[in-house]
Amino acid sequence: MIVLFTDFGVRDPYVGQVKARLAEHAPAQQVVDLLHEVPDFNPHAGAHLLAAFASSFPLGSVFLAVVDPGVGTPRDAVVMLADGRWFVGPDNGLLSIVGARHADTRRWRITWQPERMSATFHGRDLFALIAADIARGEFPTDKLSPIDALNVEFDAGDLPRVIYIDHFGNAWTGVRGVQPGARVSAAGQLFKHSESFGFVGKGEGFWFVNSVGLLELAVNRGSAATTFGLKVGDPVQVQRLN
Amino acid sequence: MIVLFTDFGVRDPYVGQVKARLAEHAPAQQVVDLLHEVPDFNPHAGAHLLAAFASSFPLGSVFLAVVDPGVGTPRDAVVMLADGRWFVGPDNGLLSIVGARHADTRRWRITWQPERMSATFHGRDLFALIAADIARGEFPTDKLSPIDALNVEFDAGDLPRVIYIDHFGNAWTGVRGVQPGARVSAAGQLFKHSESFGFVGKGEGFWFVNSVGLLELAVNRGSAATTFGLKVGDPVQVQRLN
Amino acid sequence: MIVLFTDFGVRDPYVGQVKARLAEHAPAQQVVDLLHEVPDFNPHAGAHLLAAFASSFPLGSVFLAVVDPGVGTPRDAVVMLADGRWFVGPDNGLLSIVGARHADTRRWRITWQPERMSATFHGRDLFALIAADIARGEFPTDKLSPIDALNVEFDAGDLPRVIYIDHFGNAWTGVRGVQPGARVSAAGQLFKHSESFGFVGKGEGFWFVNSVGLLELAVNRGSAATTFGLKVGDPVQVQRLN
Repeated sequence: MIVLFTDFGVRDPYVGQVKARLAEHAPAQQVVDLLHEVPDFNPHAGAHLLAAFASSFPLGSVFLAVVDPGVGTPRDAVVMLADGRWFVGPDNGLLSIVGARHADTRRWRITWQPERMSATFHGRDLFALIAADIARGEFPTDKLSPIDALNVEFDAGDLPRVIYIDHFGNAWTGVRGVQPGARVSAAGQLFKHSESFGFVGKGEGFWFVNSVGLLELAVNRGSAATTFGLKVGDPVQVQRLN
Repeated sequence: MIVLFTDFGVRDPYVGQVKARLAEHAPAQQVVDLLHEVPDFNPHAGAHLLAAFASSFPLGSVFLAVVDPGVGTPRDAVVMLADGRWFVGPDNGLLSIVGARHADTRRWRITWQPERMSATFHGRDLFALIAADIARGEFPTDKLSPIDALNVEFDAGDLPRVIYIDHFGNAWTGVRGVQPGARVSAAGQLFKHSESFGFVGKGEGFWFVNSVGLLELAVNRGSAATTFGLKVGDPVQVQRLN
Repeated sequence: MIVLFTDFGVRDPYVGQVKARLAEHAPAQQVVDLLHEVPDFNPHAGAHLLAAFASSFPLGSVFLAVVDPGVGTPRDAVVMLADGRWFVGPDNGLLSIVGARHADTRRWRITWQPERMSATFHGRDLFALIAADIARGEFPTDKLSPIDALNVEFDAGDLPRVIYIDHFGNAWTGVRGVQPGARVSAAGQLFKHSESFGFVGKGEGFWFVNSVGLLELAVNRGSAATTFGLKVGDPVQVQRLN
């Protein structure tokens, strides 16, 4: 399974071009669009999201992960194997957190270049081809060089900030493993805990641990983003139980 | 064919997670995204839309239909067979209209729970697995219990309200079988009838019977929603010919 | 490979209905969503976009290209073979530019009609079925009549206007083959050239030749559309080097 995780946007003609390449080079592989709206130009938020999602995908999945504001400049391109799953993308921190959270992670720099490579769309011209190789089970040793560490490594701990806002207006944070008794506040508001939406009143705010294990702020049948003015990057305060 | 009909949003990471489960559990099945922007928190509008779409899909299709603001609370989860097609989703009225419109509809409550089930994403953790079973042709008798009726049943008649607004600004209503001579008004405006867009002037409003049989309000090369201030839930008046 | 290129919108239930038909009539074919947000009601911008994309898809690809504000009126429906790729869509100019840019282009009018055809959704009811025939390798001679020219032919030269704005706010133009020394201005601004985003300052505007060969206006980590007030249709001035 090839899993796409990008900021290419769902409405734009970028994802389709990548999929056409995958269809040519790995026609028998399932391709799943996980997320194409990683906050623009924000590999840091993307790295926390990617780390949260990865473990729920099958072993052997190949993540094509591209949030790449530095495309065309001399940043490296990398392949990573972490916890039994593959990751292909730019060396700008995007892959670093999922890598750092597992002990047996292996990393390679992509040394190969295709004959024709645009300056602005390595997702299509480079990363898709490498991901296709790996998904087909033909690990491209000749296109890679093992490395000990990525050039850009983000802190692998939790990120107490909003990292994604969905179309309902729910605000995801980069904080894991919060227990119900914790004290959670953001935007100057203290949030109560609820297991799910329907247990609080209509229009009421609450926090919960979402379906990938992250602390999320929400409003029942409403938008937490609009109600509390939350946006990506805003801090959240979490005081755990002792 | 598994048909996805949800309010998960096209830009969010929910659909991809569902598809990954389907790819694992029913890898040979075609999966079609019919609609992921059912009006938020609105199973009523969704029920009318689903009923309008269902008959144009092949017999044996499995609809994974999830608009589920009560997820995690003790609402039931159900499977339905109506007019030769399968439906899997919450028992909150969403499936009720397509069921009520056919005489030989059968219904089951889902009594099984997977080992790991999040409180907020039953689309991924429960409904996708049941839909995959059915799509593979392995009807999961041991996970279901036959029931005579759903807990929540909406009126199966027409709904003379706007139930969907598309990106062009066309306003779909829940009214079926309107003949050209009818008198249609909404937002204080009388609409003329036209077979299609190009037969009225640029910027002019009209009504037509759309490609799934519903009365729709539109503007040629413009937005009916913007022009007339229409939004989901707004009433439409239809006076049929005698 | 069947490539979808439409203005149906990514959030609406149109693409899914087309794909269900393709899944029925050409179940073994790969289907790629290239673009569903061609500027609304704008076959002219669409024609330039389609011509720019076509050559990067495999020979034999079938483009289902529908931007069709005149659907239901007596415009013709056509099939075209240009540069080894197939195109199916309305005869309103949308296919004309990619056709005119190749010498050996062949054209057919679709003379067949399915038994049931809605007035407003020929993408689903007509074009999808013809595209499926061709993609399966069963060229539908009996449904077509050869023609010498399309009814609507746009100028096949460059279009010095904005033809698309992506979700980053980058503004694509219909101008090809511009060399780095050219003088490019739009919205009263002179733009500098850069190979890619990361070589100019944050928030700085520039132009580049994009991944399908078109002149594009952009801002590093920002939106050219917002920064310069650019929208589809706006003119761009290009003074090439002598």
